[in-house]
Amino acid sequence: MNRHIVTLAICTVLLGAGVRAGAQPDPLPSWNDGAAKQAIIEFVKGTTTEGSQKFVPPAERIATFDRDGTLWVEHPIYTQVVYCLDRVPAVVKPKPALAKVEPFKTVLSGNREAIAKLSMNDLVKILAATLSGMTVDEFTAEAKAWLESAKDPRWKRPYTELTYVPMLEVLKYLRANGYRTYIVTGGGQDFVRVYADRMYGIPPEQVVGTMGGTKYGYDKDGHPILTKEPKPLLNDDNAGKPEGIHLMIGRQPHAAFGNSTGDRQMLEYTKAGDGERLAMLVLHDDAKREYAYGPARGLPDTRVGAFTPALADEAKSKGWIVISMKDDWKRIFAFEE
Amino acid sequence: MNRHIVTLAICTVLLGAGVRAGAQPDPLPSWNDGAAKQAIIEFVKGTTTEGSQKFVPPAERIATFDRDGTLWVEHPIYTQVVYCLDRVPAVVKPKPALAKVEPFKTVLSGNREAIAKLSMNDLVKILAATLSGMTVDEFTAEAKAWLESAKDPRWKRPYTELTYVPMLEVLKYLRANGYRTYIVTGGGQDFVRVYADRMYGIPPEQVVGTMGGTKYGYDKDGHPILTKEPKPLLNDDNAGKPEGIHLMIGRQPHAAFGNSTGDRQMLEYTKAGDGERLAMLVLHDDAKREYAYGPARGLPDTRVGAFTPALADEAKSKGWIVISMKDDWKRIFAFEE
Repeated sequence: MNRHIVTLAICTVLLGAGVRAGAQPDPLPSWNDGAAKQAIIEFVKGTTTEGSQKFVPPAERIATFDRDGTLWVEHPIYTQVVYCLDRVPAVVKPKPALAKVEPFKTVLSGNREAIAKLSMNDLVKILAATLSGMTVDEFTAEAKAWLESAKDPRWKRPYTELTYVPMLEVLKYLRANGYRTYIVTGGGQDFVRVYADRMYGIPPEQVVGTMGGTKYGYDKDGHPILTKEPKPLLNDDNAGKPEGIHLMIGRQPHAAFGNSTGDRQMLEYTKAGDGERLAMLVLHDDAKREYAYGPARGLPDTRVGAFTPALADEAKSKGWIVISMKDDWKRIFAFEE
Repeated sequence: MNRHIVTLAICTVLLGAGVRAGAQPDPLPSWNDGAAKQAIIEFVKGTTTEGSQKFVPPAERIATFDRDGTLWVEHPIYTQVVYCLDRVPAVVKPKPALAKVEPFKTVLSGNREAIAKLSMNDLVKILAATLSGMTVDEFTAEAKAWLESAKDPRWKRPYTELTYVPMLEVLKYLRANGYRTYIVTGGGQDFVRVYADRMYGIPPEQVVGTMGGTKYGYDKDGHPILTKEPKPLLNDDNAGKPEGIHLMIGRQPHAAFGNSTGDRQMLEYTKAGDGERLAMLVLHDDAKREYAYGPARGLPDTRVGAFTPALADEAKSKGWIVISMKDDWKRIFAFEE
């Protein structure tokens, strides 16, 4: 036992020396120097330095990230909605009567203009039909296959490549400093779990999303199955985000990242906690490399990623730091030269 | 960088030697040698030895534990129900009309026999009244204060001392081997979170329980608050256990521990996964040191901790291992001599 402790002590000293001997690499190489990058680094240093007034114990190091528009492209239409529209023919096939009923009729017509005009109510019907009725395993296999084959029309690349490299660096940097990183998304929890681990290093238990019920039962061989039900449990958007965080995590995050009015309550809730807290908003102001919408083009966008002028004012007054994609990010995607 | 790697390599070798030099301490000292103890040790060794056919990657190492009757005493009445009954006067105080209405009238009468006869429906009314309407922070403070002062009538000790030491050892042993340990309980998620960390080393995000909705809003100073609503989301018992595991964790556990028919679906779901899985049931057969009920006294108990004869048969046929409190546990509580 004694020998083991001595060995450990020697190792601790040697490892310390080893770390000090190397130069500190930049943890955020895809970020330009500026207020946003500095805020992240100062937050991490302050909350992880023992003896610092800003110190946060490891168990309480929770950081939450919105997904669409914060970790990957959401414009002009959420990827999960594309998935649901693409799934309509498969859902209609065994139930041909559906093909004559709205909104399925419009989706099957392929008329893009008409599809774009579908109401939120129509979308809810499509989501319910395409995201429930199958087992959890079937759903995962279907979504995985789709994500491997479907391509974004602008970049002609799988959606999974439309991830923001600077945000991947933030995730890694936080995790290297003892933070547990969660996705907190208005998207479907089970859908995001299909690729969150591979794309962001975020395991299924750290994905908080819009939740539906499942039903435990048995297949024809008596093997247990969970079937996805069209039973909403929590709409994880707007006020639903802090509600979802309480349900799934039970702690107030110390850092939160979003990009739209759907994230404002999450940022507010995060900043309301004691001690050091970081709240950041990604601003889509780079029409050339990605998209420009919200205040960047002077218009509130009520459909996708609404970064309204009111949200910009609130960010300023409450100390939420805005990340300019144009100015703060050296590069956006891994596939850029 | 090179120097760092060399140092790390040296340390790995030294540490390995250090560990080998010390004698392996028994990870389960409160367990008698027998099939139950052996099954746990073989499961941990098999699933954590690289190259073993039973190996489970660290990310997938999830173990779930029922609480009442598995981690602490549940007899003769669930602690959370005692809490709710104790809270009734405080709930009635600002609403005196309630005092004349059943089931509150019976609870306030203090007539133990009449209280014991309250129906499940009555209990649901009491639970709703005592577990909602306050903010999450108020609820946590109230439950914490109660747990610090209330005492079990048999042992005259705080309920938090009625924890099974052998199960604490299993929790620690699993965690030391890379398992994440979750509580999966029919009890209220927020109630169990109040003490799970201190009692079992299980943080709030690893407590899966019966869930109710919260509502995000503001106090009179405009500070964000979450208020507990009487809105059931998931009854985390019976089939609700695998449903809750999917919702909160998104993975099938590799090990599950329970003690009653409320756990049978969790054990079944756990064993249905690929690869090595462990399912165990605590049998209350020690009337002297704790209680004897279920098949131990030859009677099905439908109210609390129903370990029915049918469950015992199922355990035998499906390879779920029964833990006899009488035979497998050297000691049960920390306060024993």
